[in-house]
Amino acid sequence: MSEPVKILVTGAAGFIGSNLVDRLLAEGNIVLGVDNLSTGRREFLADADKNSNFRFFERDLLDEKALHGILSEEVDTVVHLAANADVRDGLKHPRKDLEQNTIVTWNVLEAMRRVNVRKIAFSSTGSVYGEAQKIPTPEDCPFPVQTSLYGASKLAGESLISAYAEGYDLQASIFRFVSILGERYTHGHVIDFVRSLYRDTSKLRVLGDGSQRKSYLYVGDCVNAMLTIMRHKTKNKVEVFNLGTDEYVNVNQSIDVICEELKVEPKRMYTGGDRGWIGDNPFIFLDCSKLRKIGWKPTRSIRDSVRTTVRYLQKNDWLMQ
Amino acid sequence: MSEPVKILVTGAAGFIGSNLVDRLLAEGNIVLGVDNLSTGRREFLADADKNSNFRFFERDLLDEKALHGILSEEVDTVVHLAANADVRDGLKHPRKDLEQNTIVTWNVLEAMRRVNVRKIAFSSTGSVYGEAQKIPTPEDCPFPVQTSLYGASKLAGESLISAYAEGYDLQASIFRFVSILGERYTHGHVIDFVRSLYRDTSKLRVLGDGSQRKSYLYVGDCVNAMLTIMRHKTKNKVEVFNLGTDEYVNVNQSIDVICEELKVEPKRMYTGGDRGWIGDNPFIFLDCSKLRKIGWKPTRSIRDSVRTTVRYLQKNDWLMQ
Repeated sequence: MSEPVKILVTGAAGFIGSNLVDRLLAEGNIVLGVDNLSTGRREFLADADKNSNFRFFERDLLDEKALHGILSEEVDTVVHLAANADVRDGLKHPRKDLEQNTIVTWNVLEAMRRVNVRKIAFSSTGSVYGEAQKIPTPEDCPFPVQTSLYGASKLAGESLISAYAEGYDLQASIFRFVSILGERYTHGHVIDFVRSLYRDTSKLRVLGDGSQRKSYLYVGDCVNAMLTIMRHKTKNKVEVFNLGTDEYVNVNQSIDVICEELKVEPKRMYTGGDRGWIGDNPFIFLDCSKLRKIGWKPTRSIRDSVRTTVRYLQKNDWLMQ
Repeated sequence: MSEPVKILVTGAAGFIGSNLVDRLLAEGNIVLGVDNLSTGRREFLADADKNSNFRFFERDLLDEKALHGILSEEVDTVVHLAANADVRDGLKHPRKDLEQNTIVTWNVLEAMRRVNVRKIAFSSTGSVYGEAQKIPTPEDCPFPVQTSLYGASKLAGESLISAYAEGYDLQASIFRFVSILGERYTHGHVIDFVRSLYRDTSKLRVLGDGSQRKSYLYVGDCVNAMLTIMRHKTKNKVEVFNLGTDEYVNVNQSIDVICEELKVEPKRMYTGGDRGWIGDNPFIFLDCSKLRKIGWKPTRSIRDSVRTTVRYLQKNDWLMQ
């Protein structure tokens, strides 16, 4: 726990954003939340709304002036989480990633520069490693080639932030997340499977052959990691950290846990191939030793995270409509 | 030399673009040249204009529809060279790199997708290596942190192209250039020094301490390398190549050649520090063995390239006004 400060969180009504907001408020900080509510849920900020240290602003950050009048020099740090987080459907609307993940990040950086806010934390992704040559993949793995518009747009965001840090003397923390699970999770394979099994328990359509190996992290552990990184003293203007657990599961193992929780035994129908979709990465597993070295460790296994997520969705089935 | 094809070159009136256009026309290809003439010079296309296989279009590629009616499926390859190539002044107008190097690249990719053109070649830069951890720097060096808006915007361009290649089945050649010298060179340290010495031969202001080590490539060798890469058969959707020589010179050595050519002996006034400007890289030296392995080699040393450039500028002093 550190001295209370004023923090602006973009994507505040999102899955990770709202969990971070609650934590920051619990610590006594002042939090300004910004979200365009395109995928964020106002309901996720119900607790925050009860706290006088919280203010919410519905703004679209694609508007260059969105943060004018909101961001001021009293803000210590901008945690920029607002994004198009949909990896899979990037090819259906290729401008969306460019706009939401690259141009919006530029807009945030310019707004910061305008009022002299010097610290930024940014949600990047393990997808920037493309199909990594080295697994587990460390932050300084061989220079990757991008394979998804999502990864490309996030790497562009990282790059802009790093160049601003160098050029305008900002301090930047960049988080390369694996997929996150837990309370307020709203999109990804777990909700897709649970939703499908709610409709029909007899069968389950699985993209690919079910062997894709992925890594996941519990949202509570993710928020801990973000705060650990943001509060870590460093001389570097830019610090890049992988955020994940030291394990992975394949899609079939994840389905096992979901089915066990839901007490169903569907027939699994595989679409085939080692990838779920174009740009899908058959093996994501990050080397998170850099993060562990600064004192963080996860509290939950991937299986526990899947379980928690299924239970949360069962209790909040309005999210599945 | 290969079968004549139809090629669209963006930035056709630029330094490298116009040299490439002349070469492609000499080989009998049909060339469509596009340029907004913001830094390109219509004069550089004087020879091309005499060739009936050439057509020029003055268009601003920041307009999403700029290539509508120009790019059609008969075009074999788009060579996308249009860019803001000004590394040094990025911090003075931070949106320019985003627009000219990232958003414009997206516009070109979308125009290609629209009419099903499947091959792209792209001018990236050694600046994407930031301050490289490994020197000479190979294409698969450790994942770098960006230090300039120029490098960041070019890496974003590379990333978009790679994601499009993976997602929409394009074939992409990405060139990571060192600085290029030779005929039609119009910006960079050589012209700055020559211009200054034309005004006053008694002294020369040098950014930094003159010890910055940089690598340069002669434009004729650069065009050879681009064509070698574009015609190299590969199974990979994306091929990234460094383009440079196996040597470097420091700024002082470069000044020696310039002064020798101009027959002047100015007093050198150093601004000091190991960097010429914020984001300047004190040592750029690329490992170009990948390019050499596919059969390319340079014909000129860096000193010869500097000499050629000075002589070209002396003959074309209208470029220095």
